[in-house]
Amino acid sequence: MTSAASIDGKLYLEQNRVLVDQLLDRFTPSPDSDPRSIHAAMRYSLMAGGKRIRPILCLAAYEYSARGRVENLENVHRAMAGLEMVHTYSLIHDDLPCMDDDDLRRGIPTCHKKFGEGIAVLAGDALHVIAFQLMAETGNPSVVLELGQAVGTQGMIGGQVADIEAEGKQVTQADVIYIHTRKTGALIRGAVRIGALLGSADSATLRRLTIYGEKIGLAFQIIDDILDVEGDQKILGKQTGSDSKNLKATYPGAAGMEQARRDAGRLIDEGLALFENEENALTYLARYIGQREQ
Amino acid sequence: MTSAASIDGKLYLEQNRVLVDQLLDRFTPSPDSDPRSIHAAMRYSLMAGGKRIRPILCLAAYEYSARGRVENLENVHRAMAGLEMVHTYSLIHDDLPCMDDDDLRRGIPTCHKKFGEGIAVLAGDALHVIAFQLMAETGNPSVVLELGQAVGTQGMIGGQVADIEAEGKQVTQADVIYIHTRKTGALIRGAVRIGALLGSADSATLRRLTIYGEKIGLAFQIIDDILDVEGDQKILGKQTGSDSKNLKATYPGAAGMEQARRDAGRLIDEGLALFENEENALTYLARYIGQREQ
Repeated sequence: MTSAASIDGKLYLEQNRVLVDQLLDRFTPSPDSDPRSIHAAMRYSLMAGGKRIRPILCLAAYEYSARGRVENLENVHRAMAGLEMVHTYSLIHDDLPCMDDDDLRRGIPTCHKKFGEGIAVLAGDALHVIAFQLMAETGNPSVVLELGQAVGTQGMIGGQVADIEAEGKQVTQADVIYIHTRKTGALIRGAVRIGALLGSADSATLRRLTIYGEKIGLAFQIIDDILDVEGDQKILGKQTGSDSKNLKATYPGAAGMEQARRDAGRLIDEGLALFENEENALTYLARYIGQREQ
Repeated sequence: MTSAASIDGKLYLEQNRVLVDQLLDRFTPSPDSDPRSIHAAMRYSLMAGGKRIRPILCLAAYEYSARGRVENLENVHRAMAGLEMVHTYSLIHDDLPCMDDDDLRRGIPTCHKKFGEGIAVLAGDALHVIAFQLMAETGNPSVVLELGQAVGTQGMIGGQVADIEAEGKQVTQADVIYIHTRKTGALIRGAVRIGALLGSADSATLRRLTIYGEKIGLAFQIIDDILDVEGDQKILGKQTGSDSKNLKATYPGAAGMEQARRDAGRLIDEGLALFENEENALTYLARYIGQREQ
């Protein structure tokens, strides 16, 4: 395990992406076990790649909080897998014809395109279940509650509802911040907080990491909006221009592209400033989010 | 609170249905809090009535296990609400056009008919989240795990997948038992076990109540199939004949109506026999399930 204190960020990211893939394989039912079709659908969407940013943020927050006291890696591994599962479930449901109606995700057909809508709904539901089971297996009910808060109607689901309801409407910058903070920000914040809780962060550290998660979580979605306008479809692995096609509320749409770039950069800088001049996995990940092309 | 030992069953059921309604109101976000549309959809489906059999089984198993040691009613109340929420979420998703495509549930339009498919998917997801949060709030991670096991791909969701995949196919009685044990039986078994766990049942009692849950859970779905053929649509509050219309695998379809009636009756009797000659809330509920008309 790479130490969080002095770090080759690129290697950290690469190694831990491999780790996340291994964990997802380990904690998802075998494709040979019944009912096979849903296990195949769950694995198809989980293993399609992706940045694995939420579990890696969780790990980095855990290492930062635990410092020399890294003991229960088993628990943080469970939480990491659970976070990626809940993220993947949200993508599967979000891509459904009755939601964003997307055909392509991470460069391959979306779950419902490949397995049919009924199985896609259930595959999302089943990933949701395993995510909560993995959190409970840490033996720490506060981790289950943290996930619940991140994804419920005050978090991710609430953001998705607001996102649907804002479609085609004139929205202000404040409206977009409301949506983005919930739709994307809440789970990123939750990933950081779950890592901190498992690492037994003291209350000052937990507060600081929470602010870090909020800053980079909002920046992440602003940059997502920017990439949907300016990104390279091949690098992104999904269609660009879908926000505009779906009349989505976006940050560049509400505030202009220049302001969007400035605000994303400012949020990343504010996240970095929380660590003063220390360089660690969390500062590397903040910069990575600020500069990402996919 | 009515004692579980000597009991007016009808009163017990009526009083606890009122209790379940109160708990659902208490643990569901206010319809006045944002985002209102999803809170309204969640409440609409939760408050449409229903037998409330899962939470009441949980309570009865709790009282039976705790005997004189009834202490943490707060916890069992949370679990009761969570069980009804997870049941309601499964109905909302099950009614979707890409699943069973039902227009009517509990005598009123289904969630997606009233609020649209997108909000219905998310309302189901959000009820799923609160159910796990409520289980975690008991402070007992094993209760979270029990719910996960009951509703995952080895339980309810697995049964729904098998149910979809069996549509229009020739199925054996064993196939139908496989489907019913998971689709409906697993959550009923889970409700009983969660009550027993919260009531600190000793291992012999937990084993006995688990068998009870399995027997009445399977009987419950066999009787559901029978009512779909012979029931009164007005009493049921949903369309009859939908299994036949949807080419569903049913117990009467695989084993014949007479055999279905006999097997349901036998399962109920086996459930009752676990208590020898004692009459209590659990035996009342087993008889109620055996004789229900809705």
